Amino acid sequence: MLSQIFHELGFTPPQVVRADLPFEPCVRIGDIVYISGQIPERGEEITAIGKVGDGVSLDEARKAAELCAANVLFWLDRELQGDLDRIVRVAKLTVYVNAAPGFNQISQVGNGASELLLRILGSRGEHARSALGMAALPLGVAVEVDAIVHVR
Amino acid sequence: MLSQIFHELGFTPPQVVRADLPFEPCVRIGDIVYISGQIPERGEEITAIGKVGDGVSLDEARKAAELCAANVLFWLDRELQGDLDRIVRVAKLTVYVNAAPGFNQISQVGNGASELLLRILGSRGEHARSALGMAALPLGVAVEVDAIVHVR
Amino acid sequence: MLSQIFHELGFTPPQVVRADLPFEPCVRIGDIVYISGQIPERGEEITAIGKVGDGVSLDEARKAAELCAANVLFWLDRELQGDLDRIVRVAKLTVYVNAAPGFNQISQVGNGASELLLRILGSRGEHARSALGMAALPLGVAVEVDAIVHVR
Repeated sequence: MLSQIFHELGFTPPQVVRADLPFEPCVRIGDIVYISGQIPERGEEITAIGKVGDGVSLDEARKAAELCAANVLFWLDRELQGDLDRIVRVAKLTVYVNAAPGFNQISQVGNGASELLLRILGSRGEHARSALGMAALPLGVAVEVDAIVHVR
Repeated sequence: MLSQIFHELGFTPPQVVRADLPFEPCVRIGDIVYISGQIPERGEEITAIGKVGDGVSLDEARKAAELCAANVLFWLDRELQGDLDRIVRVAKLTVYVNAAPGFNQISQVGNGASELLLRILGSRGEHARSALGMAALPLGVAVEVDAIVHVR
Repeated sequence: MLSQIFHELGFTPPQVVRADLPFEPCVRIGDIVYISGQIPERGEEITAIGKVGDGVSLDEARKAAELCAANVLFWLDRELQGDLDRIVRVAKLTVYVNAAPGFNQISQVGNGASELLLRILGSRGEHARSALGMAALPLGVAVEVDAIVHVR
């Protein structure tokens, strides 16, 4: 169960009440789930704000990417009514890194998200990926991650 | 009909003749339509050029995002031969904001696009979303929006 | 055959052994293949590092985008066991340009990728596209390209 996994990893689900947002955390079309860009939020707290490479370290950014990926799983778990076994395969992950000028270790940040999916889902977590350096992200967060997932 | 909606909202379709571009405005694969990145163009005019937060205000950027979303609907309408009822659900919207240094109100800009889809399509317009701050966009436009849409 | 096309175009496939990366070059879900962000690598060499518009010229960036698209085809060819005839249609291409401040010819860079697909695949290569200016890319490369492709 995800709650047990989260407990072991020290994650807390994001604040769920978002009635004010004009979009959904995820949308399912047939057996594909599109998950909205997730930010490094833990409960009501955002854990990593700022530019990676200037204020936010590579290690902090990796952990932020991991937390974004945990939030991807959180919303998937809700969509699948608590049954992560219904995940067939993670198709695509995109990792957006709020990069300071000159910071190029974009892949290394992305690995924080990728490795969490592999750890929790095994071969079903093996995904295609793009890792990108951004000029800005919502609320100034350091990392954002979205995903496309095949479910049943 | 879209033309009536556009009339009420004050939109003008983008200039359609684009024989010189080596890509399509949208591609349909089965019941999924992928719509190319739309820019804030109205007829032959581009309404918002520049960095949001430096030259382009938040309110101007929201309106530019709304216009990009209107152009998403324009191409969908053409793909569906004028019958927007064939839209089943907007799956994913990605909003790209040409952000000046320090501008972080990326979500607020994105809401201009999201709210238009909800206004025109109702619950069928409820979508997953990523909102991102870019270093540059084609022609220096302030906002670009692409989409993945489930149709029948 | 792709190897013959590559020979004529002067491409060399990217270095294939990547056991250390925590993601896949592509993932197939039903008849859709998601291809990871490709960089301008030729064999073990990366051909274009730096900011487009400052160090990397428009023409060099176009050629880098073309090489990224060639690598998209390389991975597709492997996924399809050497039979590119099994490509039904390229659905979506996203071109990420590592843009120097003030560089806005993002579409022109993207055309290097788009035109290669049209040249090799004909009408099956006609795709939807987003072209974007980034603050950074992995390893500091000038261009990255990912794709969604319909196959059989």
